[in-house]
Amino acid sequence: MKVELDPWASGIRIEDYNKVIKEFGIGHFSDMLKRISEPNLYMKRGIIYGHRDFKQIADAIRKKEKYVMMTGLMPSGKMHFGHKMVADEIIWFQNHGAKVYVAVADIEAYLMRGSSLEELRKVAIEEYLTNYIALGLKPKNCVFYFQSEGSVKYQTLSKIFAKKVTFNELKAIYGNLTPEKIISALTQVADILHPQLENPIPTVVPVGTDQDPHIRLTRDIAYRFKKEYNFILPSATYHKFMGGLGGGKMSSSEPKSYIALTDSHEEVKTKINKYAFSGGQPTVEEHRKKGGNPDIDVSYQFLTFVEEDDNKLRKIYSDYKSGALLTGELKAILIEKINKFLETHQKKREKAKDKIDKFIIED
Amino acid sequence: MKVELDPWASGIRIEDYNKVIKEFGIGHFSDMLKRISEPNLYMKRGIIYGHRDFKQIADAIRKKEKYVMMTGLMPSGKMHFGHKMVADEIIWFQNHGAKVYVAVADIEAYLMRGSSLEELRKVAIEEYLTNYIALGLKPKNCVFYFQSEGSVKYQTLSKIFAKKVTFNELKAIYGNLTPEKIISALTQVADILHPQLENPIPTVVPVGTDQDPHIRLTRDIAYRFKKEYNFILPSATYHKFMGGLGGGKMSSSEPKSYIALTDSHEEVKTKINKYAFSGGQPTVEEHRKKGGNPDIDVSYQFLTFVEEDDNKLRKIYSDYKSGALLTGELKAILIEKINKFLETHQKKREKAKDKIDKFIIED
Repeated sequence: MKVELDPWASGIRIEDYNKVIKEFGIGHFSDMLKRISEPNLYMKRGIIYGHRDFKQIADAIRKKEKYVMMTGLMPSGKMHFGHKMVADEIIWFQNHGAKVYVAVADIEAYLMRGSSLEELRKVAIEEYLTNYIALGLKPKNCVFYFQSEGSVKYQTLSKIFAKKVTFNELKAIYGNLTPEKIISALTQVADILHPQLENPIPTVVPVGTDQDPHIRLTRDIAYRFKKEYNFILPSATYHKFMGGLGGGKMSSSEPKSYIALTDSHEEVKTKINKYAFSGGQPTVEEHRKKGGNPDIDVSYQFLTFVEEDDNKLRKIYSDYKSGALLTGELKAILIEKINKFLETHQKKREKAKDKIDKFIIED
Repeated sequence: MKVELDPWASGIRIEDYNKVIKEFGIGHFSDMLKRISEPNLYMKRGIIYGHRDFKQIADAIRKKEKYVMMTGLMPSGKMHFGHKMVADEIIWFQNHGAKVYVAVADIEAYLMRGSSLEELRKVAIEEYLTNYIALGLKPKNCVFYFQSEGSVKYQTLSKIFAKKVTFNELKAIYGNLTPEKIISALTQVADILHPQLENPIPTVVPVGTDQDPHIRLTRDIAYRFKKEYNFILPSATYHKFMGGLGGGKMSSSEPKSYIALTDSHEEVKTKINKYAFSGGQPTVEEHRKKGGNPDIDVSYQFLTFVEEDDNKLRKIYSDYKSGALLTGELKAILIEKINKFLETHQKKREKAKDKIDKFIIED
């Protein structure tokens, strides 16, 4: 079966990542691990599972050479732990020598979702940027910009790119075309490539699998404009999606599916106890006897994103599997872990508000 | 028969302007003449034959209220008398109170014709702008800009517009669509409407008939974004095309078809004597007897664009028709008229070069 990826479908879950790797020619990220001296939790645990051309990024990190980490954010509602993973990736790259570009995809959000630019701006700053800062993003070596306000050269670049893209090619990538889709796609390509306008520089774009069509289009265009701009084809990493609490997808429009970075202790407790899909047995007796299934247990899966200690995590896994750890106890571990994190984070968020103007230059 | 207008076909000639007026709902410019106290030669002689919503412009001129004249130029080769007509129109509006915007359509020329942006820039300044200045364009109340360098708000506007344009609608207007056509079309719409970003203001766009699809699209989009931007639907005037010397179309790529504003006396003489299609009879005797046909005589048609004196022109018409004026004599009148104009113009051109930096702000 052909795997279909639609970057504008909301939050699809890809069950079979190996199929994706094979079908789209994505590399196994595990092959890159030996080249990275301080891999983050997501890299080590295979949550970042794929890549394109990551070797040039690993080399740049090792040799302390210049490179760019480029990402986009589409502001919508509250920032949750799925978004936190992306923020952590960004910050990891910044801490490992990258010049960071964060594009607020306000033009794309306006065109594809009809959101107002003013509202998007507010959410991007008050919700996303504030959380990014609290999570460790620094203003030095960081360009945080809105698509609607990017430089003239960047804007023009997205138009220039139309010269070497055909209609049928865009249709093959994006399905039924609309003027909105074409403008959004070309704008994203300019987002990824404009850091190279001055000088060619290796660039990595950490994405979810659904964004691979954009990556492929961008690499094709970079190649076609090699003569004019001498672009280096951008690299990418691919992460798995964090599943929603109920076992389905995590969605900004469904508060029961996620923990927001602004949720209270009480909300966290309620959401996990009430909604987190369990891999445990129906009764305590049965659980003690047969053990639980951590591979489908959402609380355990959630812990793989937030519990840094490999040994602790391994013990939780085996205890839950043996039945020594009950579902309620597992949930309590997760609740405590998250609330401890959120307590610190929410204090940092308050302080972060003072640092916003170091990122945003108002007209 | 349906009249088809393709803004990207090069220099089509529309034989039946009344058909165009009827088919596309263009108004007769003659109805506007009574509202204009100092119509120019092109208006008086029906060379400017059509309009949309020109009343609001005539009112603005009469009441000395603010309005905008917006035009684009697509630099290609030498500037000839066909281009001069447009320049004269622009300057007439500037002299009658308009704030003038001249967009160099370099993005469009790059996308649709593959010209290099550097070369386009050179031609736009050294050929077009220099001639415009020599013809009387003044830096005050004039914004001369390149599509590739327009403000960020202008660039973004062209993307925003994608939200309320459908694919099928563009296809109906422009035929087979390509990404280039879509970007070019939306950029042109932004060219025409961005002068209203600060405040709604009546705007007139003088165009050839082939550009009417752009005007209609722009008016549709202006209407759809009324809530967001409060645009006033732009007005337009429509001029007939100046025919080529040989009787076909005047084309930048065919030097025998036009007189360039930089042609020498000798070139003018040779071109008119050799190539100008004649409405005369095969022999002098026959001509004296039957008379010539000024309505198809290119030299006479050319004079309607350059001889300001209505009485002189009327006499030439009747003398040629009666046979009193021979083709050679008619050509001599035209040659003298053009060479006299070019002698002064080319001196002004030299002086104009010093004024270029009042229009162009280099980075």
